[in-house]
Amino acid sequence: MGTASLGGMKVGVSRLDREIDELAAISVHPAPAVTRVIFSPEDLSAREWLTVLAKEAGFLVRQDPVGNLFIRWEGSEPCLPAVATGSHTDAIPNAGKYDGVVGVLGGLEAMRVLKEGGHVPKRSIELIMFTSEEPTRFGIGCLGSRLMAGTTSPEQAQALRDPEGRSLDELREAAGCRGSLGAVKLSTGAYKAFVELHIEQGPLLEAAEIDIGVVEKIAAPSAFRLLLKGQGGHAGAVLMPGRKDAFLAAAEIALLVEKAALESGSPDTVGTTGLVEVKPGAINSIPCDVKMEVDFRDTNKEARDKALARIGDGTHAICKRRGVTVDWQVINQDPPALCDPSLVALVEAQAAKAGCTQQRMISRAYHDSLFMARVCPTVMIFIPCYKGYSHRPDEYSSPEAIAKGVTVLAGCLKELSAR
Amino acid sequence: MGTASLGGMKVGVSRLDREIDELAAISVHPAPAVTRVIFSPEDLSAREWLTVLAKEAGFLVRQDPVGNLFIRWEGSEPCLPAVATGSHTDAIPNAGKYDGVVGVLGGLEAMRVLKEGGHVPKRSIELIMFTSEEPTRFGIGCLGSRLMAGTTSPEQAQALRDPEGRSLDELREAAGCRGSLGAVKLSTGAYKAFVELHIEQGPLLEAAEIDIGVVEKIAAPSAFRLLLKGQGGHAGAVLMPGRKDAFLAAAEIALLVEKAALESGSPDTVGTTGLVEVKPGAINSIPCDVKMEVDFRDTNKEARDKALARIGDGTHAICKRRGVTVDWQVINQDPPALCDPSLVALVEAQAAKAGCTQQRMISRAYHDSLFMARVCPTVMIFIPCYKGYSHRPDEYSSPEAIAKGVTVLAGCLKELSAR
Repeated sequence: MGTASLGGMKVGVSRLDREIDELAAISVHPAPAVTRVIFSPEDLSAREWLTVLAKEAGFLVRQDPVGNLFIRWEGSEPCLPAVATGSHTDAIPNAGKYDGVVGVLGGLEAMRVLKEGGHVPKRSIELIMFTSEEPTRFGIGCLGSRLMAGTTSPEQAQALRDPEGRSLDELREAAGCRGSLGAVKLSTGAYKAFVELHIEQGPLLEAAEIDIGVVEKIAAPSAFRLLLKGQGGHAGAVLMPGRKDAFLAAAEIALLVEKAALESGSPDTVGTTGLVEVKPGAINSIPCDVKMEVDFRDTNKEARDKALARIGDGTHAICKRRGVTVDWQVINQDPPALCDPSLVALVEAQAAKAGCTQQRMISRAYHDSLFMARVCPTVMIFIPCYKGYSHRPDEYSSPEAIAKGVTVLAGCLKELSAR
Repeated sequence: MGTASLGGMKVGVSRLDREIDELAAISVHPAPAVTRVIFSPEDLSAREWLTVLAKEAGFLVRQDPVGNLFIRWEGSEPCLPAVATGSHTDAIPNAGKYDGVVGVLGGLEAMRVLKEGGHVPKRSIELIMFTSEEPTRFGIGCLGSRLMAGTTSPEQAQALRDPEGRSLDELREAAGCRGSLGAVKLSTGAYKAFVELHIEQGPLLEAAEIDIGVVEKIAAPSAFRLLLKGQGGHAGAVLMPGRKDAFLAAAEIALLVEKAALESGSPDTVGTTGLVEVKPGAINSIPCDVKMEVDFRDTNKEARDKALARIGDGTHAICKRRGVTVDWQVINQDPPALCDPSLVALVEAQAAKAGCTQQRMISRAYHDSLFMARVCPTVMIFIPCYKGYSHRPDEYSSPEAIAKGVTVLAGCLKELSAR
């Protein structure tokens, strides 16, 4: 990365950097690890902290019934659809400090920089902190933006339970989120545009020494949960031929998921068995119950769905052979999203204006933008991160890389809010 | 099973049955499941309950520093080495009510029946309730009898930690067990004999309609723990070829364990991956850490050790190919035990006297007898259980089957305590 002219605007590198560290400290696990599960005490503290920060900067703060937080800079024509940016601050166990956070705190910084620079927006600018982008608690990601887009209905959301059996309603009410979930859905035209700044979570920008990734397309994610039921028994006493070991079925299925991803014909297919719970979970007991959750995605919907069909067939064959029953639950199977061409062009123009090197790319990770794209024109701005690491404590983006992303975002918000 | 003449002694079928149910109710999980982990509140309640029962029957109760409980019926020559029976009452999560319990409560019933029948023992009779036969809490089974036999040293025991990091010393002291662990080891000749009554935990006796299994040999168990370390990352962003997924390595290893057991050349080889913990354990995160525990055993030590060597080689090849590191920890690798021929003959004679059908057999599950066999002549008495099920809530032995086992045990204790 060369030195970039920051286009006349002064991004507060040290201020933003300090705030990222402050937010990272609101975590169950100590730095550099970050664990901040939705509606946990840490999540609630982070929300309070962010609200104070936003009010200090002179912005309005409101929250919707599912806890999506809106930080609003009122424009001179407040009835016009606002321009939105944002991301999430929830973090899976032992994650890092940048995923989502760069879009939230970077969005706040972009708004402050514009305000300090004397910009007077015609349209209001709103920074959204989305609820539960991470699926940790409820098994489904992007809960806040799904409800905003109407992709998930209030009834589906009400049926969600966390691993301890607590409902979304119980948890959101305990967190002080009032009102009916039906009120979360946005009306068409509620926003003029949505622009999300995010770390790449992949290695391409860093390897190519490119400052800005302009996202054209977001991969088609899908996720499913398998509940496998075999037959338990004493590990010493039940001979091998008669066994119905639920974990061995799970092991075969996980290897099949890998094989299906590797052989899909699309280089972008990824398949991951990220969650595996084995019961009873004693060294001398044959596993009788396994819960596994699989994430499978591609930018190519056809390749993905073909691979998923192969996994489905293979799973049933494995379970039949092993005498294990399977309950296959689809968590989500979303289509890919296209970013808005005029917004893509706008990001490119602003990156050029800021003197940043840039390339178009696709997002393989999925983001709230995938659902915002159903509500309004959407685009994403990616910045490089160390080796593409994400969801781990050594996730890292340099202050300079973040500053460039914030500068390009500020340029976009300035342009979009002026028209 | 035909009707058995119970050899003149009157086993209290309904009393014993009621006590088995009472003990089963002291459990974390509701009946028919039983969960009673060593030094848990339930284990401590069970100990108190058993102590009261033993005192009501007129026996003495003492506890050693690791919590092995000794229920003593003093003989007329109390300085002679005592005759011992016993088993365990701890239970893995979601186990049944008979494993171990039949040997403890059945042993108590045998002593009461002899006392009520007017028997006056020359040698004292001791019923032992062993600490932590199940490896649930500390990862190693038969902790109490290992320390009694000196197979595990006090230093090794002191190094044990439960999954929450609590030490054996901390937990035993909280449970009221005083004194140095060094005092647990038995001197040679401390007991004249040890006879353990147990459900078969296998299907053979029930299928052949045989009342009593006379155990000649106990299988050679071994257990190991693998700590696998790969590389985490975002499930959507890291392409397949660069991954170092610790769980996929674990899946391959578990399937190799199964294959090595199936192809060992010995029909008795069993291999089980009973414990698997995957971290960070989020659907959208590549697993970076896996802990797995494997139980592998055979009556044939050579076949077992050859299969273990194959698993070792294969594990290293799998991990190398996948870029995953492995820390291989041996939990135990015990030799098989032979039962004492004269005690085997005694059980056969007592079974015949009680009119029971019988057969000699081997124990594939391992028991405290495996370690008691290093201290004194030892034998086991097996009774049939439903389909061989064990370590699950539907574990079952009929009151009649248990009564026959208790009668044979009482006959042995009577004989042994008279000489």
